[in-house]
Amino acid sequence: MDAMRSKRNLVAAALVCAVVFTTTVAQATDPLPSWNDGPAKKAITEFVATVTKVGGSGFVPVAERIAVFDNDGTLWAEQPMYFQLAFALDRVKALAPLHEGWKDKPLFKHILAGDVKGALAEGESAVMELMAVTHTGITTEEYAKVVNEWVTTAKHPRLNRLYTECVYQPMLELLAYLRANGFKTYIVSGGGVEFMRTWVEKAYGIPPEQVIGSSGKTAFVMRDGKPVLVKLPIPESIDDKEGKPININLHIGRRPIAAFGNSDGDLQMLQWTVAGSGPRFALIVHHTDAEREWAYDRDSPIGKLDKALDEAKARGWTIVDMKTDWRTIFPPLD
Amino acid sequence: MDAMRSKRNLVAAALVCAVVFTTTVAQATDPLPSWNDGPAKKAITEFVATVTKVGGSGFVPVAERIAVFDNDGTLWAEQPMYFQLAFALDRVKALAPLHEGWKDKPLFKHILAGDVKGALAEGESAVMELMAVTHTGITTEEYAKVVNEWVTTAKHPRLNRLYTECVYQPMLELLAYLRANGFKTYIVSGGGVEFMRTWVEKAYGIPPEQVIGSSGKTAFVMRDGKPVLVKLPIPESIDDKEGKPININLHIGRRPIAAFGNSDGDLQMLQWTVAGSGPRFALIVHHTDAEREWAYDRDSPIGKLDKALDEAKARGWTIVDMKTDWRTIFPPLD
Repeated sequence: MDAMRSKRNLVAAALVCAVVFTTTVAQATDPLPSWNDGPAKKAITEFVATVTKVGGSGFVPVAERIAVFDNDGTLWAEQPMYFQLAFALDRVKALAPLHEGWKDKPLFKHILAGDVKGALAEGESAVMELMAVTHTGITTEEYAKVVNEWVTTAKHPRLNRLYTECVYQPMLELLAYLRANGFKTYIVSGGGVEFMRTWVEKAYGIPPEQVIGSSGKTAFVMRDGKPVLVKLPIPESIDDKEGKPININLHIGRRPIAAFGNSDGDLQMLQWTVAGSGPRFALIVHHTDAEREWAYDRDSPIGKLDKALDEAKARGWTIVDMKTDWRTIFPPLD
Repeated sequence: MDAMRSKRNLVAAALVCAVVFTTTVAQATDPLPSWNDGPAKKAITEFVATVTKVGGSGFVPVAERIAVFDNDGTLWAEQPMYFQLAFALDRVKALAPLHEGWKDKPLFKHILAGDVKGALAEGESAVMELMAVTHTGITTEEYAKVVNEWVTTAKHPRLNRLYTECVYQPMLELLAYLRANGFKTYIVSGGGVEFMRTWVEKAYGIPPEQVIGSSGKTAFVMRDGKPVLVKLPIPESIDDKEGKPININLHIGRRPIAAFGNSDGDLQMLQWTVAGSGPRFALIVHHTDAEREWAYDRDSPIGKLDKALDEAKARGWTIVDMKTDWRTIFPPLD
């Protein structure tokens, strides 16, 4: 076959595929079955309809359909403590037999006695030490293995399911719905980037290269003639508040058109997203369901939602009332 | 249509598309017409055949087909000086009328007199100052505009074409060939990430989110109620040598299966790439063509290729002899 014919066939094949897919997807049933009909669901589907309407004034090319999601409290739960902190505490217990001296240090004494409040009350340098001993000093591959072991075995104390099963079913549907409409979905979280990368692909369908998070420095070291990256106890980037738009710029290099968060730590990311031209979407998950999940906002030490709630109301951003907007919270267990 | 039928149709459509595309691509003519037949071209096509052969022992799933490319000297030329340095020098000239004091400072005096060697001889702190005054103090959007103006007007002094036209035609074909075979192509360069992002999509078909480079810190600032990111004169990451695998891990979070470079600054990236399990590919572009491009390696201050050349030979990596392997160097001008 000559090159010209081959090229014509490619174009024809692409057209057939586009038509078949578009028709099929359009005929599918409700893509957001866990969302009750209401203003939040309506705002989401209207935004997607606007940016995908070819020839419409709000059309956005596929390459620019970037959506960013906070993780803790937005895609999975974050109570009674950030899950990564639960990992760190469990890790201390697992490592304690190798560290005879820990039983004399207040920080570790508290943790080993199950007194989390006491441990955190030791102050910021103690927490930094906790993160250092549980997250660094090993290679990136060793660390990934340790995290993987934890997420496949440790269970949430109240929800009694694996932490990775404490994800929000409505948000899983939203991620899939956006991707089906040409969006590239990113996580932009204060959590550790390497902590998340071990499990988010399976949990959310988000590949490692679309995860942005807090990070520490690593060192390139030769071991037995093979290079490894060793995690160092030196913080590099705190991916929270201003750090979120800064890291979005560093990692993605384009401004998202949609942003999803749940706390004041997400405010700057939402501000940055909506400041671009053309259609923009900002959504806040408001934790209002003490029975099925948790209810907290302005006074919560975890996931504090105060300034961002005021700004969301003032600017007409979409606010999800978890209690009324979500038909189900967590996915069914197998 | 019910959900079940809809799902079946989607699967059927996907199968049809996969078959039509695979057949059509396989029948296309030589995807690397600017590569002469020889060991380099053979190694490339054999590697791609291996990792894409479904059911073969070397098959690599599409999601893991990550290929990383150095930029300066690998995708575009880098002589007689890095093009980003040429941008900085031109920028000094453009800004000079606004900075009365510059004419009394040795660094700027040299630059304004066209004495590049003299300017660089002022030492590292002078070069840092040059980068600071030409790359920082403005917003990311203002900076992108300045770079865009430069790349669409400034011409290379010897090649007499836009700098973005000093890209290597064989590498453009290689990028397209890899992408047609399911690879995600990344740039991993010592150049500034924001400098590259303004033009690489058009030049190479690589989107901004697949560009990794050196970076400086930015600040999130509110201006007239709108957030902007201001580029600060504070270096953040030097994406060279060990910095390359470190940044690949930070930004991509998976190990590439193929890496392409041309200098000792790429050695650690190539080592990191081939240290993974399964089929791996490492390639060095050796500048051997003084007539059509430049000839340099071990003694060149720019793009020094010494240790990496030894290691490439010792380990059997693919070495491109530019003079014999490349039928053409630069793309035809419109």
